Amino acid sequence: MNEIDTLIRLFSRLPGFGARSARRTVLYLIKKRETQFLPLISAMTSVAEHISVCPVCGNFDSQTPCAVCRDVKRDPTTVCVVQDVADLWAIERSGYFKGKYHVLGGLLSPIDGTGPDELKLPVLEKRIRDEGIKELILALPATVDGQTTGHYITELFQNAGIRISSLAQGIPVGGELDYMDDGTIRTALASRR
Amino acid sequence: MNEIDTLIRLFSRLPGFGARSARRTVLYLIKKRETQFLPLISAMTSVAEHISVCPVCGNFDSQTPCAVCRDVKRDPTTVCVVQDVADLWAIERSGYFKGKYHVLGGLLSPIDGTGPDELKLPVLEKRIRDEGIKELILALPATVDGQTTGHYITELFQNAGIRISSLAQGIPVGGELDYMDDGTIRTALASRR
Repeated sequence: MNEIDTLIRLFSRLPGFGARSARRTVLYLIKKRETQFLPLISAMTSVAEHISVCPVCGNFDSQTPCAVCRDVKRDPTTVCVVQDVADLWAIERSGYFKGKYHVLGGLLSPIDGTGPDELKLPVLEKRIRDEGIKELILALPATVDGQTTGHYITELFQNAGIRISSLAQGIPVGGELDYMDDGTIRTALASRR
Repeated sequence: MNEIDTLIRLFSRLPGFGARSARRTVLYLIKKRETQFLPLISAMTSVAEHISVCPVCGNFDSQTPCAVCRDVKRDPTTVCVVQDVADLWAIERSGYFKGKYHVLGGLLSPIDGTGPDELKLPVLEKRIRDEGIKELILALPATVDGQTTGHYITELFQNAGIRISSLAQGIPVGGELDYMDDGTIRTALASRR
């Protein structure tokens, strides 16, 4: 197998890629050697060498602890609990939240066999003990596993003397009622303000 | 701008990528550092270092001339003319053609301002003179620019003493008539055998 085929095979394993898009990407990169291919290789090498998991919150960064954990202007008493780094990035893009984070690295799932030991809960317990945390905001997916995980965390810390809240559920901004599923409309009605 | 953002920005410039798929790919790679990220970097580096354009036919390969041009079991008297390396790969996947290739690197296009000088036609002229080529198969797209380019090549070599043919046009294998456009049905009727 030659170098080009090996590269196509590796690209086709990435999420969202198939054989056709992998071939297209590889051809494109070979043609744009100087402007795209070499800069991409260099940026990938830099990320692979320098990025690690923040031991405090689970974010990815080149610094340890990560930039969010080191930022003294952020409120250390409010911690937003998320499933994945992608969710942390999504909340950061909204620009609204000025507290800290905790990335669980998954959700409790009886079906997949994911128990509490697989999530970063011991680190969260330690942070609540040591860092003077006053509120946990659970920003977990509105799925069965997300709800299960939320309930578990709420029970786990019910005697820790902290406030625990969850993201509001309802109609998304700009969402049209006609396109919403029944569950969303029911929740939005029940939680009306 | 940190390393991760730089990498996301570079990925989002690739064809078929947007901001969201670039973020997803970068997160995926960071999480699969050993099994996917490092092998991908190494395969990309190897392609960037070793692959070049074949000076004879325009294919991409680590050898010069390319593996197809060097293969003595292939018929050197029949040359298939294609627009792009992607088309050469597509014909090779079909496994039917056992001649050689010539990659034009584009099509004549009055609208885009692509003239004969931008295509690899001088090299093709030289090959016809020197290599004993007896037949050109024009495997060009069934578009206006593809047709224009085909006519131009046919005229250019009409006194070169070679046969010039084109790919047959008609209904694709497995194609349902109901889904074919009018032009395809008209061509298939006119070229019936």
